[in-house]
Amino acid sequence: MPITERLARRAMNLSTRLPAPHFPSEFGQETILFDSGFAAPQLLPDLAPYAVAALSEHREETLQYASGRGQPYLREWLADWMNDEGCALTADHILVTNGAKQGIDLVCRLLLDEGDAIVVTAPTYFTAIPLFRNYGIDFIEAVQDDAGIDVAALERQLDRRAAEGHPPPKFIYNIPEFHNPTGATMPADRRAALVALARARGIATVEDSPYRRVRFDGDGGPLLKSLDTDGTVFHVGTFSKLVAPGLRIGWVAADPVHIARMIQLKAEGGSSPLIQRIIHGFASSPAFPDHIARVQAAYRERRDAIVAAIARDLPGAVVAVPEGGYYVWLTLPAAVDGDLLAEQAAAAGVHLIAGSRFFAVRDEHTPRNHIRLSFSYTTPAQIDDGIQRLGAVYRKMTGQ
Amino acid sequence: MPITERLARRAMNLSTRLPAPHFPSEFGQETILFDSGFAAPQLLPDLAPYAVAALSEHREETLQYASGRGQPYLREWLADWMNDEGCALTADHILVTNGAKQGIDLVCRLLLDEGDAIVVTAPTYFTAIPLFRNYGIDFIEAVQDDAGIDVAALERQLDRRAAEGHPPPKFIYNIPEFHNPTGATMPADRRAALVALARARGIATVEDSPYRRVRFDGDGGPLLKSLDTDGTVFHVGTFSKLVAPGLRIGWVAADPVHIARMIQLKAEGGSSPLIQRIIHGFASSPAFPDHIARVQAAYRERRDAIVAAIARDLPGAVVAVPEGGYYVWLTLPAAVDGDLLAEQAAAAGVHLIAGSRFFAVRDEHTPRNHIRLSFSYTTPAQIDDGIQRLGAVYRKMTGQ
Repeated sequence: MPITERLARRAMNLSTRLPAPHFPSEFGQETILFDSGFAAPQLLPDLAPYAVAALSEHREETLQYASGRGQPYLREWLADWMNDEGCALTADHILVTNGAKQGIDLVCRLLLDEGDAIVVTAPTYFTAIPLFRNYGIDFIEAVQDDAGIDVAALERQLDRRAAEGHPPPKFIYNIPEFHNPTGATMPADRRAALVALARARGIATVEDSPYRRVRFDGDGGPLLKSLDTDGTVFHVGTFSKLVAPGLRIGWVAADPVHIARMIQLKAEGGSSPLIQRIIHGFASSPAFPDHIARVQAAYRERRDAIVAAIARDLPGAVVAVPEGGYYVWLTLPAAVDGDLLAEQAAAAGVHLIAGSRFFAVRDEHTPRNHIRLSFSYTTPAQIDDGIQRLGAVYRKMTGQ
Repeated sequence: MPITERLARRAMNLSTRLPAPHFPSEFGQETILFDSGFAAPQLLPDLAPYAVAALSEHREETLQYASGRGQPYLREWLADWMNDEGCALTADHILVTNGAKQGIDLVCRLLLDEGDAIVVTAPTYFTAIPLFRNYGIDFIEAVQDDAGIDVAALERQLDRRAAEGHPPPKFIYNIPEFHNPTGATMPADRRAALVALARARGIATVEDSPYRRVRFDGDGGPLLKSLDTDGTVFHVGTFSKLVAPGLRIGWVAADPVHIARMIQLKAEGGSSPLIQRIIHGFASSPAFPDHIARVQAAYRERRDAIVAAIARDLPGAVVAVPEGGYYVWLTLPAAVDGDLLAEQAAAAGVHLIAGSRFFAVRDEHTPRNHIRLSFSYTTPAQIDDGIQRLGAVYRKMTGQ
């Protein structure tokens, strides 16, 4: 077979094409973007002073090659930051990555072989689904409720699989805080039970934690990483949701033996020391706690606005109020098709994501009566306007 | 087997540990670093004005999520830049990557399965060797001379393999310009023959071209990508060697169907739009051609200095004078062990890399009488001093 044909076949076979992502700049002011996990433009910090310092005082560091692990000062800062929340890490436990997604991908490259199984929640973070599919794995979908993964139900599922002769899954992927898309936060006892179950079964845990500090209420449970006693919890963090997505800097906190191997798999010559220096400059400055407070206050206001507007304009829709994060997850009356609602809303200039897209396994049992709304990019006034317009579409669909 | 043991075993088995890379900051002024491909600190441009513009005028672009393909304006600029050298590309042929290494890695992820074979030169770029090994492939080592790959010899090698029933290799990896480590540049007829051979055998070609514009003499041959008639040449470029390694931005130019699949495999949320905007600002400014001229002049001076010093202080060593790039490759008298010389030189404060490390297949046939010296990081005065000190070690070893 000639190379062109072989390559084309591979390009088609390995995975279905992703739809092109939407960027705010593609749309006019009148379009309401509840679909995106973009940051509020008003909250993007002024990083110019840190960039100037990085490119002048630190030029020989920031423009040269740097360690594949990440810059030592940033790894130390990150270890301290996580230790403030009960972890016991050193800089050697940290690998700086190009965003959380590269962190998740590296954990996959470390742990997965074709034909393996992994546990994801149903629903789960939809951008991770094709990333996991790249590895030719099978999904085990864990049931969750308002308190996150139902650990007892997962244990029974794993028992059934073991009885059928399947090897254990390689890891459990979860977002314990302000889950994307459901918004659920796991309480402390659930977290302890999850980590204990994974440990007992010889399964790694991947804690994806992009929203941890984007908290409005409550004080949440401990980091899963802080409950790790045998080095099998992989914590994935990022500056995207707290500072700015365009920086493309995240990290993995894991056992040093795994970090060493992930550095090799990272294979791209290390993350940019320029961006790492800019982030460290900002995160160590007095402006940083002020920025966090500003982010929390602004997104809290947006969450309150969207919850109130939904109560007003979407009769019959149930929303669990998230304690943080960027999203609300709506359960619509059983007869309402979320895919159709997303389509008709887009035609009316209101973009959102149908709930069905968040299920790794999509079949006739996949619930269709959900939608996810992001409140991060839109102002409270746009939220009000957008939900009102969505409500009109919704009421037409539901005959109200 | 418990997960800890399974993970530890995997971490040990999958690949041997890499030695920690050396950074200039680890050494004092008196140490001479001929081992590194670091940029001359004196040539690192002042990018602060471009960063300030990127973080103020373009803040909403540079701090938000961006396209996984790379920013459109940068992809257009890159297509134009390559079209100036005879290619026929649009922005759709370009994928922006985190340095050339990520580009090479993505081509591997696209094309390779465990057990495949690839063609590399003997010697080849040593950082790529473990990267290729991650994919569990076999190496076919192509013979090269002063004009790069000996294409006729490679054809005979491929014939022999085919006669033995082996499937063709997946790709031929090569650095046609100022080869790392040999410094050789392939003339036009060799390039045409290589691309024709690959095409006839259904083998992809990976053109790694980090040094293309770091040219001192001659006008080189055409880009392999410009000779591509069926979309099977993957060109990998980078700003690391011409502008600054710390930016971590490179690109792949390839057929759009392959680019689409590589975007999915890239899986890290896109390269930083902040860095892309800074690079585009600099590369479109009047400062850029001046910068290129400055880079070429400075490295030409360093090449001339090292070639002259070698002639003076290393009697019996043969160096092919490279027309560009960062390195000279020395062939020592057959009895001189390059590994031993590297070790003894390091003890005398002069760091260089033994030639044996550049061979993908290392066995009793691997030539030991080579060393690679980088002239990019050291000033002409340091070059003079360093080669003098290396000469003392060398003459002691050779009994001169």
